[in-house]
Amino acid sequence: MSLVAGVDIGGTNIECALVDDDHDVGDRAKTRTPTEGPAAVIDAVVDLIGGLDEAPSAVGVGIPGPVNDGVVSRPPNLALWPEEVELAARLRDAVGVPVEVGNDANVGALGEWVAGAGRGSRFMLGVWMGTGVGGGLVLDGRPYTGAFGGAGEFGHMIVHHGGAQCGCGRRGCIEAYAGRAAMERTAEMSHRSGRATSLFEIRDDEGKQRLTSKVWARALDDGDGLATQLYREAIEAVAVGVGSVINLLDLDRVVIGGGLAEKLGDQLADDIAEAAAPWTMVPSDDHAHLVAERGADPGIIGAAALGRAAMLLS
Amino acid sequence: MSLVAGVDIGGTNIECALVDDDHDVGDRAKTRTPTEGPAAVIDAVVDLIGGLDEAPSAVGVGIPGPVNDGVVSRPPNLALWPEEVELAARLRDAVGVPVEVGNDANVGALGEWVAGAGRGSRFMLGVWMGTGVGGGLVLDGRPYTGAFGGAGEFGHMIVHHGGAQCGCGRRGCIEAYAGRAAMERTAEMSHRSGRATSLFEIRDDEGKQRLTSKVWARALDDGDGLATQLYREAIEAVAVGVGSVINLLDLDRVVIGGGLAEKLGDQLADDIAEAAAPWTMVPSDDHAHLVAERGADPGIIGAAALGRAAMLLS
Repeated sequence: MSLVAGVDIGGTNIECALVDDDHDVGDRAKTRTPTEGPAAVIDAVVDLIGGLDEAPSAVGVGIPGPVNDGVVSRPPNLALWPEEVELAARLRDAVGVPVEVGNDANVGALGEWVAGAGRGSRFMLGVWMGTGVGGGLVLDGRPYTGAFGGAGEFGHMIVHHGGAQCGCGRRGCIEAYAGRAAMERTAEMSHRSGRATSLFEIRDDEGKQRLTSKVWARALDDGDGLATQLYREAIEAVAVGVGSVINLLDLDRVVIGGGLAEKLGDQLADDIAEAAAPWTMVPSDDHAHLVAERGADPGIIGAAALGRAAMLLS
Repeated sequence: MSLVAGVDIGGTNIECALVDDDHDVGDRAKTRTPTEGPAAVIDAVVDLIGGLDEAPSAVGVGIPGPVNDGVVSRPPNLALWPEEVELAARLRDAVGVPVEVGNDANVGALGEWVAGAGRGSRFMLGVWMGTGVGGGLVLDGRPYTGAFGGAGEFGHMIVHHGGAQCGCGRRGCIEAYAGRAAMERTAEMSHRSGRATSLFEIRDDEGKQRLTSKVWARALDDGDGLATQLYREAIEAVAVGVGSVINLLDLDRVVIGGGLAEKLGDQLADDIAEAAAPWTMVPSDDHAHLVAERGADPGIIGAAALGRAAMLLS
């Protein structure tokens, strides 16, 4: 049994854990993501790994940005990051074991594929509904990262030309309807213009600054009208995108993960499946919609799977 | 030098030609597509092949419908076709050489990839702008057909939720804006409601029943207002779709083919590239937009390439 460290670098936190051959997660550690640039991020990762119960035989990393052959370009949520950083090579030098790096959404899809709701699929789309909307693909039985490591931007597929403003500057992206940040902006605008909603009371009651997935789940459970409307619009945008991707790629599985999936469970996948059916050309028994099974861990599990592959190939 | 027969089964005609190792097209033959069902279509293909200058060492076929492992399901434009037909096996029995069958749009993309504007690409989308809008993919250096052989339905990706009515029954598909049949319907409605246009005079002048690609090209060349508007809408729909696909799949090449591409040439690819740039997240020097190089032949060349692969693997 060899242990591999899976590292999930986010805009806010870095999480790290030991993962065994069966993709089971053992000892784990967490720290705030440094804001002083790549060297500080690398130091933080090395410290986290050094503090684990055992020294790992390899390290895999997921990071929110395009990754091409271990080089990370322009991660939008990491501070002071120059154009290109050879993250895999620099971490390898620092930890002395094989290291592989992947985009966080791709790595999350990989985690669900090797050890979650994607097991047994050969053509899978993973959709991550969080602050934004991310995606990852497994095509023809292999993780798919595209020509330059930038694949998987499901959230920035256009489903409504000229539609809602997206944080990326474009209009009509899936994320403009189904990203939590966009949903919160729309809810705030509606509320300020006089629309009644319990969303903000629930937020305060939960002691949160933002409309978290738990806040949305409670408001939906209460039958709040605005929350229900915005949830339906989010589901419809994701469903139109899923239908388009199935028409283009002929998938056998769609896995829905992220905060909202953790809170709503199978209901979310079922709602998306029902809304996507009218948009898909192939019969719906050719593909299944499932909710992610590994909770917050697919990023760590997928990163560890990348690291394990690097170890086996090294 | 071995010769392979490439067969392009269309809703109207079946075309067939001998193709050599260099993907050069030799002796060719053509017949009307029989409307009496699969047995008559198979007989027609066998007759065409039998009439060629030399007996081919293998046969490859492109057909407008989903193809899974040589089995053709529900081709919408072929008459009296039951649910599933084992076309590859039945043709193999009839001609006595290896036979492979693929979807026509996928096979066309394959033709441009092996011997046209897709040469050297590893991540390519082929877009076919004809009566409808088709697509074919090469991903990670291999032709991509999806989980059940139905991949490539680029024309039925949704770019405008709730938008124009598509022939498939859905709304907002790319084909509803950029398919020649849809463009003609829209032009007719505008013309009937009093909008001036030279499109129908040019059609009559060309002695055509329909607004062919040549008719559109002449009207655009004349600066016809309605033709220009509908062309711009078509370009925009394709461009939004291309942008979405690049964001999802991180391609290195987009090849635009079909009747309109033959008539308009590089201008069409340039117009799409320009319109797609605002919708893509990656820098535009990461991917090229090119017009198909093999005219009406990529289907025959791609089919022959499939047949050649079947021969080498048999």
